[in-house]
Amino acid sequence: MTEPVKLLIHGASGRMGQALMRLAAEREDCAVVGAVSRKVGQRVVDGVPQFAANELSGVPAFDVAVDFSLAEAFDPILALCAERGAAFVSGTTGLSEAQRAAIAIAAERIPLLSAANFSLGVAVLSELVERAASALPGWDCDIVEAHHNGKKDAPSGTALALGAAAEQGGAQPRYASLRAGDIVGEHLVQFAGQGERIELVHRAINRDIFARGALHAAVRLHGRPAGAYRLRDLL
Amino acid sequence: MTEPVKLLIHGASGRMGQALMRLAAEREDCAVVGAVSRKVGQRVVDGVPQFAANELSGVPAFDVAVDFSLAEAFDPILALCAERGAAFVSGTTGLSEAQRAAIAIAAERIPLLSAANFSLGVAVLSELVERAASALPGWDCDIVEAHHNGKKDAPSGTALALGAAAEQGGAQPRYASLRAGDIVGEHLVQFAGQGERIELVHRAINRDIFARGALHAAVRLHGRPAGAYRLRDLL
Amino acid sequence: MTEPVKLLIHGASGRMGQALMRLAAEREDCAVVGAVSRKVGQRVVDGVPQFAANELSGVPAFDVAVDFSLAEAFDPILALCAERGAAFVSGTTGLSEAQRAAIAIAAERIPLLSAANFSLGVAVLSELVERAASALPGWDCDIVEAHHNGKKDAPSGTALALGAAAEQGGAQPRYASLRAGDIVGEHLVQFAGQGERIELVHRAINRDIFARGALHAAVRLHGRPAGAYRLRDLL
Amino acid sequence: MTEPVKLLIHGASGRMGQALMRLAAEREDCAVVGAVSRKVGQRVVDGVPQFAANELSGVPAFDVAVDFSLAEAFDPILALCAERGAAFVSGTTGLSEAQRAAIAIAAERIPLLSAANFSLGVAVLSELVERAASALPGWDCDIVEAHHNGKKDAPSGTALALGAAAEQGGAQPRYASLRAGDIVGEHLVQFAGQGERIELVHRAINRDIFARGALHAAVRLHGRPAGAYRLRDLL
Repeated sequence: MTEPVKLLIHGASGRMGQALMRLAAEREDCAVVGAVSRKVGQRVVDGVPQFAANELSGVPAFDVAVDFSLAEAFDPILALCAERGAAFVSGTTGLSEAQRAAIAIAAERIPLLSAANFSLGVAVLSELVERAASALPGWDCDIVEAHHNGKKDAPSGTALALGAAAEQGGAQPRYASLRAGDIVGEHLVQFAGQGERIELVHRAINRDIFARGALHAAVRLHGRPAGAYRLRDLL
Repeated sequence: MTEPVKLLIHGASGRMGQALMRLAAEREDCAVVGAVSRKVGQRVVDGVPQFAANELSGVPAFDVAVDFSLAEAFDPILALCAERGAAFVSGTTGLSEAQRAAIAIAAERIPLLSAANFSLGVAVLSELVERAASALPGWDCDIVEAHHNGKKDAPSGTALALGAAAEQGGAQPRYASLRAGDIVGEHLVQFAGQGERIELVHRAINRDIFARGALHAAVRLHGRPAGAYRLRDLL
Repeated sequence: MTEPVKLLIHGASGRMGQALMRLAAEREDCAVVGAVSRKVGQRVVDGVPQFAANELSGVPAFDVAVDFSLAEAFDPILALCAERGAAFVSGTTGLSEAQRAAIAIAAERIPLLSAANFSLGVAVLSELVERAASALPGWDCDIVEAHHNGKKDAPSGTALALGAAAEQGGAQPRYASLRAGDIVGEHLVQFAGQGERIELVHRAINRDIFARGALHAAVRLHGRPAGAYRLRDLL
Repeated sequence: MTEPVKLLIHGASGRMGQALMRLAAEREDCAVVGAVSRKVGQRVVDGVPQFAANELSGVPAFDVAVDFSLAEAFDPILALCAERGAAFVSGTTGLSEAQRAAIAIAAERIPLLSAANFSLGVAVLSELVERAASALPGWDCDIVEAHHNGKKDAPSGTALALGAAAEQGGAQPRYASLRAGDIVGEHLVQFAGQGERIELVHRAINRDIFARGALHAAVRLHGRPAGAYRLRDLL
């Protein structure tokens, strides 16, 4: 049995952070060695040392930082990883151009992954969609997504990402969006030819899958060469 | 065993007419006693006497006329049924206001059914949709329909009919349309609540179902009191 | 605005009981006036008076008891409802013959509902299945259900109930079961004819729907004549 | 514009043979230069020279033979292709061990493809299934197939082929089969993890897709190096 990967959870008090803490505790291939959140000072909760976001210098040695926080807290944790040579997984959104540039520079020194959707299933589906599109030239491609009726934007970011994969394969996808009930997130990519059809579907049932995907990515990213990875590269 | 219902097929040379002839020959509960088409004079094909549309006076006794022709050929066949006291099933579309009024008048003398979609499955689905809508107040209702990429209008007439059934039950349906491949016709009516969902789907695989539904309606309409029926009433 | 229906939650410390407490607090048409659980003595939690199961005499006036407990705790709560003339909703399973007989007797005095599945969607689907089966004689009927891979029995009780509804309508359903991942519960009832098909699907996303259905039933049952009701009767 | 590929249709009077003739006439990238069937002597139908199966020596030059006949007619057409250095596409089933051995030997001289299912969609799906299985270790894999109620064997050969692809990727598929109505053929491969699911579906609407796939394969096989190909290799 290999050593568990040492994780630093950044943004530990948020909804995603708490899910990361809870789900990491269930895995044997990783161990949380520190939890960073905005306000909390240095103490220990459930055996995990807690740190405030402005006291990063004190955090112990770690292999990978997993960051689901806010854009304004992003720079210090990226800098820490680059400085310590640790890997970096981030689901923080709303980054500025400057921050994206900082990611590119850091990717020359450490392995990192910055993504909007950490569902393994969506990452796999995205790959299948590109492959299907390239193998089925001339077939009509339609993407139907369904989310809860409180979601304002349409099509969803994931639908657009799947559409981009389809375009990569040569298809020209069209989109339809349903906003209904409390649907967590469902995506159908349909390829229709003459007399036959392929339907590729992803259904998300709960939001834990995003935390699970981030932990999976962290474990897989550890030990890789420096570079900017996609979730698909780590399946 | 009861006597087979005697059918007169009006519009016998059209695509629907030919399907009606072919499928009626497979049933024991009805028999085609005459086939009317535009140009053909009086002769016998496969044992069925043929008549030209302008020579209706010569057609033999029949129980039900099944009409899939054109609006301009509609008046004489309706008149013949009313005159002879025969039932009337019509899938002819594009009728004028005057023709619709003539239907209403004839319905005082004979049982008749004029409809745009003769699929039994759609008729049943329509009833289920209305029932579901009334039993699930407050649930979101979405209708997704898919047809071949040559279909211009959207949403489909059937989707709108299903939507009307949903509204009858108190729902406020929204529509999405896919135009892809050579899909004959698929309709999904989804009701989404909190934590659960109902999906009601109809898939048409070939166009024979419309002829089959018309024959079914003809057999069921025979012997009924005068009146204007819906396909749903004859299930 | 009418008065909220006064509920007594019996089995309040169980998983369903807690969901009932939480979801009742969100509704305006009902109010929990007492929570009964096995061990707790008389005290007040979050404004709700708590009672031990063996001290039922002290509970305040209520309109409907909602019971999700164990068979061994069933008799006293049924007796209390009959005695006070209150309605009774129970999802307790594993009842003995004697207990079922006691339900039948109590149903002569009070309105009550004892059921295994309190999903509104399943209750509606069950009705649709019976209707579809009776409207589509000769169509093949198949039921496919999917549940998490820890579920031992197959087909699921709900699948069998849907099958019974199909048989009521004259169909002869066949069953297939999938045990996969952590699927909460999905049921497909398919009717296949010549050239067309109807698919009726229910998807449960989380288990709150059962508590929600029980509360709905309680509110609807209040004020009805004595008798044994099905969830379908209260939609 | 390149020259159309010259096809010899072997088994031209069968259902598949007729579909091949009809669909080849609609394509510009291939031309039928001869049609071989059991009984017909040398004559010309619709511009295509006809040959009896026992007079193959007289057939004109061709690039690819497309064979959907019977096992007892298989040896001469394979021999002819090998002799003339033409490519060979065969959907003939029920081949003997000796015939399979003959295919392997011929594959050293000519490019050939012998397969049971010529649907492009199924070939693509098969590839996607293998990829998904290998990317999603530990997810439950279930295969559900539906065919018309006259189909005796279960699971279908295509379901088993998809299952083999899943196993290739490391999954352990389970099977469920529906036999209902006149369903041409539908296959669902489901991968279920924790909190999310992927469904990969193929729907065949009519049987022309198999003829279309065979023509596609013939055009793609022409000009390739000698060897035994799979449909997947020619997408």
